[in-house]
Amino acid sequence: MEADFKTIALVGKYNSPACGASLLRLAAFLRERGHEVVLAAHTADLCEIDDLRGYRVSTLKEIGGLVDLALVMGGDGTLLNIARALVDHRIPLIGINQGRLGFLADVPLDTMFSTLDEMLSGQYMAEDRIMLEASVERHDDILIANYAFNDVVVSKSTMGRLIEFEVYVDNQFVYSQRADGLVVASPTGSTAYALSAGGPILHPTLEAVVMAPICPHTLSARPIALNSRSEIEINLIHAEDARVHFDGQQHADLRIGDRVVIRRANNTIRLLHPEGHNYYDTLRQKLHWGEKL
Amino acid sequence: MEADFKTIALVGKYNSPACGASLLRLAAFLRERGHEVVLAAHTADLCEIDDLRGYRVSTLKEIGGLVDLALVMGGDGTLLNIARALVDHRIPLIGINQGRLGFLADVPLDTMFSTLDEMLSGQYMAEDRIMLEASVERHDDILIANYAFNDVVVSKSTMGRLIEFEVYVDNQFVYSQRADGLVVASPTGSTAYALSAGGPILHPTLEAVVMAPICPHTLSARPIALNSRSEIEINLIHAEDARVHFDGQQHADLRIGDRVVIRRANNTIRLLHPEGHNYYDTLRQKLHWGEKL
Amino acid sequence: MEADFKTIALVGKYNSPACGASLLRLAAFLRERGHEVVLAAHTADLCEIDDLRGYRVSTLKEIGGLVDLALVMGGDGTLLNIARALVDHRIPLIGINQGRLGFLADVPLDTMFSTLDEMLSGQYMAEDRIMLEASVERHDDILIANYAFNDVVVSKSTMGRLIEFEVYVDNQFVYSQRADGLVVASPTGSTAYALSAGGPILHPTLEAVVMAPICPHTLSARPIALNSRSEIEINLIHAEDARVHFDGQQHADLRIGDRVVIRRANNTIRLLHPEGHNYYDTLRQKLHWGEKL
Amino acid sequence: MEADFKTIALVGKYNSPACGASLLRLAAFLRERGHEVVLAAHTADLCEIDDLRGYRVSTLKEIGGLVDLALVMGGDGTLLNIARALVDHRIPLIGINQGRLGFLADVPLDTMFSTLDEMLSGQYMAEDRIMLEASVERHDDILIANYAFNDVVVSKSTMGRLIEFEVYVDNQFVYSQRADGLVVASPTGSTAYALSAGGPILHPTLEAVVMAPICPHTLSARPIALNSRSEIEINLIHAEDARVHFDGQQHADLRIGDRVVIRRANNTIRLLHPEGHNYYDTLRQKLHWGEKL
Repeated sequence: MEADFKTIALVGKYNSPACGASLLRLAAFLRERGHEVVLAAHTADLCEIDDLRGYRVSTLKEIGGLVDLALVMGGDGTLLNIARALVDHRIPLIGINQGRLGFLADVPLDTMFSTLDEMLSGQYMAEDRIMLEASVERHDDILIANYAFNDVVVSKSTMGRLIEFEVYVDNQFVYSQRADGLVVASPTGSTAYALSAGGPILHPTLEAVVMAPICPHTLSARPIALNSRSEIEINLIHAEDARVHFDGQQHADLRIGDRVVIRRANNTIRLLHPEGHNYYDTLRQKLHWGEKL
Repeated sequence: MEADFKTIALVGKYNSPACGASLLRLAAFLRERGHEVVLAAHTADLCEIDDLRGYRVSTLKEIGGLVDLALVMGGDGTLLNIARALVDHRIPLIGINQGRLGFLADVPLDTMFSTLDEMLSGQYMAEDRIMLEASVERHDDILIANYAFNDVVVSKSTMGRLIEFEVYVDNQFVYSQRADGLVVASPTGSTAYALSAGGPILHPTLEAVVMAPICPHTLSARPIALNSRSEIEINLIHAEDARVHFDGQQHADLRIGDRVVIRRANNTIRLLHPEGHNYYDTLRQKLHWGEKL
Repeated sequence: MEADFKTIALVGKYNSPACGASLLRLAAFLRERGHEVVLAAHTADLCEIDDLRGYRVSTLKEIGGLVDLALVMGGDGTLLNIARALVDHRIPLIGINQGRLGFLADVPLDTMFSTLDEMLSGQYMAEDRIMLEASVERHDDILIANYAFNDVVVSKSTMGRLIEFEVYVDNQFVYSQRADGLVVASPTGSTAYALSAGGPILHPTLEAVVMAPICPHTLSARPIALNSRSEIEINLIHAEDARVHFDGQQHADLRIGDRVVIRRANNTIRLLHPEGHNYYDTLRQKLHWGEKL
Repeated sequence: MEADFKTIALVGKYNSPACGASLLRLAAFLRERGHEVVLAAHTADLCEIDDLRGYRVSTLKEIGGLVDLALVMGGDGTLLNIARALVDHRIPLIGINQGRLGFLADVPLDTMFSTLDEMLSGQYMAEDRIMLEASVERHDDILIANYAFNDVVVSKSTMGRLIEFEVYVDNQFVYSQRADGLVVASPTGSTAYALSAGGPILHPTLEAVVMAPICPHTLSARPIALNSRSEIEINLIHAEDARVHFDGQQHADLRIGDRVVIRRANNTIRLLHPEGHNYYDTLRQKLHWGEKL
């Protein structure tokens, strides 16, 4: 596979000055390899201004139209954030983890130069992951619309009481629930919050989303994996206060009667992994599953 | 068993004018049987003032010193509330449920006169349930202390992110958790929120409390039933915001470094049930368990 | 939709003489509508011989080449059995339930004539469900190969001790387990044994299978939904005795070192449902999920 | 605490010649300390006959009347077995684990001489654990009666189909179940098979048993912790074949109509732990729970 990543964006973790030095070393490495480097504006802020001479600095919004690849440094949380911002531009992403292995960020900081050298020469595995999009509808208005790479969560908010809602899939009534909330997760998000709520793992190649109730009042409520082509509607019937969360990073308050409508987004996220990447190895390592006997 | 309930308190559900009429009928019934009736102040407010002539009206605080029995109308939630208020006075409680069968309120409104007639004549089953007490300690101060009949819950609050805490039992380190929260429940509370969080049912006669994590990040976290003589300490290590809840009815905000200390209260709550009361019947009915084959 | 079911097979529950009368009434009804009727041999045995004049009787093996549709009377278990027998012939199936609603058999015996009259006139919903196939390999031999519509289960047998096995998906090592067993279920089987083992529900349209451990020794073992195009291999590493089960209806003994290989079968099973059939209604009714609020 | 263990039994793992050498070293060590040593007969078989001169050899049955303490080498499984054999004699037990830390066998082989030297001098923590006893009743006969230190399990046997049973506690009907089986576990057994079946952990000081269904058909079936003074009766209503297991080490076949009756045994098992033993440390280590943050 031959790759041609002429222009590459560098994106760091928000408010993490500690990664400034690594980012600049990475920028220098890329320039030396002949790539044009664009620094995300919030990322440039992590570096000393004198060190930035020569690198273009752009907002995340602009970056989508400028680059062929984005290198994201900082862990799965940062990558989720960037994925939502860039999904409309179909920019492939490489995630560099600063500490322990991430589900998404799987290039270790320690060995990033040698690993990236190979990947930028075309030795990588590309994987397309589905993205969710959700809107909140009140009466006939769309109050808010957003992407979610991991999950859309409707849950109780401050008051700590359960909420009551009805769920429809493709306009068919599925169930009503009294619960702390409901997680709707992509395969990518199935190993995040949905897993803590008791949901199954969905292999990344599945065209599916999982719907898992959080602390449901009805004991026979069980997680269900739905077709990703389905439209899921959550109607908030009763709550003292409730919220919808996108990847646990953005949220909006909900009122009784609001409908949260969740679909698969048109575009996918392309993740680039080092060659030899193995999804099950990551699972096994992160979840402490049994090794060969 | 011979009973002597000379003075009886009547307590209704907060802000439920609908139960005013039933309360007055009940008061008249009791007076006719020769009992002295005391109306809880908030309960009297549910009734027309002209209808109250002759009944003593007292605050919950005073009632504890005045009565031999409290009749609580309104469901399990109301009974929890009254149990916390009266536990220091060891007043037995009878719960009248207005709608569907409660775990605690098991005298149906429909048949309350005949059932109460029997119970007040001594035909009842008495059951003592343990109560929890919890305090929040900051540095060397006790910020707040409260009872809980069902459960003490430490959980994330508004921001919807997980919290990190350490748990000690009798000063021995048990585990650290990253989770939405932790439920510590009495046997009474084991069929409430703890059950939704995946906890076991604890038979009411057990001198035990259950500790169940809510959506734990560690998949091998499991509910554990501890001796009720144990002291449980939850240290909040990291959180954007967190709260402690008492029976889901009262709460306090927590800061990083706060310690929530939970013990069995000295006093128990005495519940009076109609004769023939069967705990397993209630479980089976509420949880839709299988009938005889 | 116009249908043309010239020849129809009737298949009853094994060893259920009670359904003989219903089957004969159904046969008469079909003949009257102008269909040719073929009785499965084991089904004919359920009826008095004098009542069979005129109906062709064939083995299940032959029926596949003779009919355009099979009516299966007796519940989900009977339908599973027939589905495995007929999958190579792509005969559509209608399931008639004698008692309570089945997940698969959803035409009630009570109203079968009016419902079938509509369905045979073309008013039905067709749904294609994936089928699994599994083989047991010992050294270089294939000991046994079989279909499974619900699930393939590898489990301990008589001795009641756990077994140890390794799982590979598409030749990639996934995990080793010490457990009572492992369920690999189709979407159809996800509401059967896999659900009891803690697995998620998979919507029937998903091209997925779920792999759920039974009483795993490792607490972080979680059900995983895999792509149905994947090949799953279970290597038995240690066991006193172990078995592989197909739909819980057929089985074979396993030895240490045996490999059970599971794939999606080439053919699907076409189920015909009455118009208005709603998968979520069935789920809600069978699992006692909450109705509209 | 001063101890006086004049005569000490040595018990090894069945059919484990590998532990013969360690046992003899241990015997020599004990004799040197002035204790009289009795070797369990099956244990003596693990050693070369010439090495046994001078040590008394007795059956497990006799040992109960001869010794003041039993040292059990081989892991939790061996200790379970010896506990059942010796419970009537109230002999304290020390468990020596040959490999990884056990829940019960917590003296490491590596350091056994120094650890035992301290323990035999009185520096130990004694802990009394409850034992279960179960009988199988057919018509008016008691077919079999046995102890169980971990658990009594009623389960399907060879055929791999679910069984149907009713459960009574203190003669009160609790529920009927269709399931793979039912585990009734002591606090000691709560970290064994019951945990794999989804049961909670019970602290060893609890006077409780946990009842956890195995793969129940009813999704709202939940583990319940009962008072250890309760009598639990399991009536087998329907099954192709079923068994009752005691600690997973002994079993008996069951017929439809059989009743398995489970009670707390009169005697307890006294375990001696090294000083500093901490139950939560063991839990955390075995279950990979989170360390201090």
